[in-house]
Amino acid sequence: MKLYNFFRSGTSHRLRIALNLKGLQTQYVAVDLRTEQHLKDEFKAVNPQMLVPALEVHGKVLIQSPAIIEWLEETHPTPALLPGNADDRAHVRALAAIVGCDIHPINNRRILEYLRKQLGASEDAVNAWCATWISDGFDAFEALLAADSQRGDFCFGNAPTLADVYLVPQVESARRFKVDMQRWPRMAAVDAACARLDAFRLAAPALQPDAA
Amino acid sequence: MKLYNFFRSGTSHRLRIALNLKGLQTQYVAVDLRTEQHLKDEFKAVNPQMLVPALEVHGKVLIQSPAIIEWLEETHPTPALLPGNADDRAHVRALAAIVGCDIHPINNRRILEYLRKQLGASEDAVNAWCATWISDGFDAFEALLAADSQRGDFCFGNAPTLADVYLVPQVESARRFKVDMQRWPRMAAVDAACARLDAFRLAAPALQPDAA
Repeated sequence: MKLYNFFRSGTSHRLRIALNLKGLQTQYVAVDLRTEQHLKDEFKAVNPQMLVPALEVHGKVLIQSPAIIEWLEETHPTPALLPGNADDRAHVRALAAIVGCDIHPINNRRILEYLRKQLGASEDAVNAWCATWISDGFDAFEALLAADSQRGDFCFGNAPTLADVYLVPQVESARRFKVDMQRWPRMAAVDAACARLDAFRLAAPALQPDAA
Repeated sequence: MKLYNFFRSGTSHRLRIALNLKGLQTQYVAVDLRTEQHLKDEFKAVNPQMLVPALEVHGKVLIQSPAIIEWLEETHPTPALLPGNADDRAHVRALAAIVGCDIHPINNRRILEYLRKQLGASEDAVNAWCATWISDGFDAFEALLAADSQRGDFCFGNAPTLADVYLVPQVESARRFKVDMQRWPRMAAVDAACARLDAFRLAAPALQPDAA
């Protein structure tokens, strides 16, 4: 498998964690968003949406991290990243979607560049924008964790699920935007529990070959 | 089942289509986003994220339309909204995620209100914002449809899937923002094919009890 990704991209980070949890090795192909490699024809031929990550597997290219991670879960079911019953899976997928739909896509590189260049937003305004959507989403995420009386060290139960796979890169990004995690103690504790696992630790942006 | 939703919300529209395709009846509970009913304590007790839609089922509340729709697929598998093999499912889920992650969340009500109120964006600037993300996503979506030589009248094969469930509300929204669909003839044709089916037709915003 060939993993097209960028060390600091949150969706790339998320996919690296899932691959590590499944114990899968990939060939790392760096796509440098800083020099806009993702907008060049060479990468457009890989992914017409011109976004990372993309996973090339048996001659096909899979795109969109939520779709790729569901594919990983179906084709490499052990260890499971989704619980055994449908209601619990809906809960875990909802946690993941809070990050995957309502936080990350609003704060990613192309959006922030548009705010700066087309709308003339200052860096303070950009940081306030990011903090708003991170805080709104994290408040909901924390409330769902607080309401779950069965929860152990992770977002659901006692082992990592899809929810942790999505959460950890978003916490990394929140820290980069100087958002104080003290407001969300349960999420900060989950993040710390994940950081003790190699699958999460080794997926961190700073440890990737293209990290500055 | 009790469906908390708002006639014009794209994620509500998407969930209504999925429920209709599965042949499921729900009690319609209107949550008026125009009067900010979703931000009141009464609705916060239903969904701590204070977003529609939410689906109450056997005493539990499911939130986040991507999670609810996967739950529907698991608990009511017929008719299937995902294809039979993992690679095809990844393809359909990727199409859905282009809309569900990279278009809709960036153009929804709370974001546009922030652009207007916090960043002082004019209506022209707001429309240009929406058109940018719709066009970027639709270009990728259309390219994926064009590359699929097996495709029939719908986004994948000859029957509606998750991809159509996500696409149709986004096309409705694109038209509301005066985006010309001529640039994406395959998507426009899929939208027309869906409009001929009652499951899609009856889920349209204009036909809901809370429509103005």
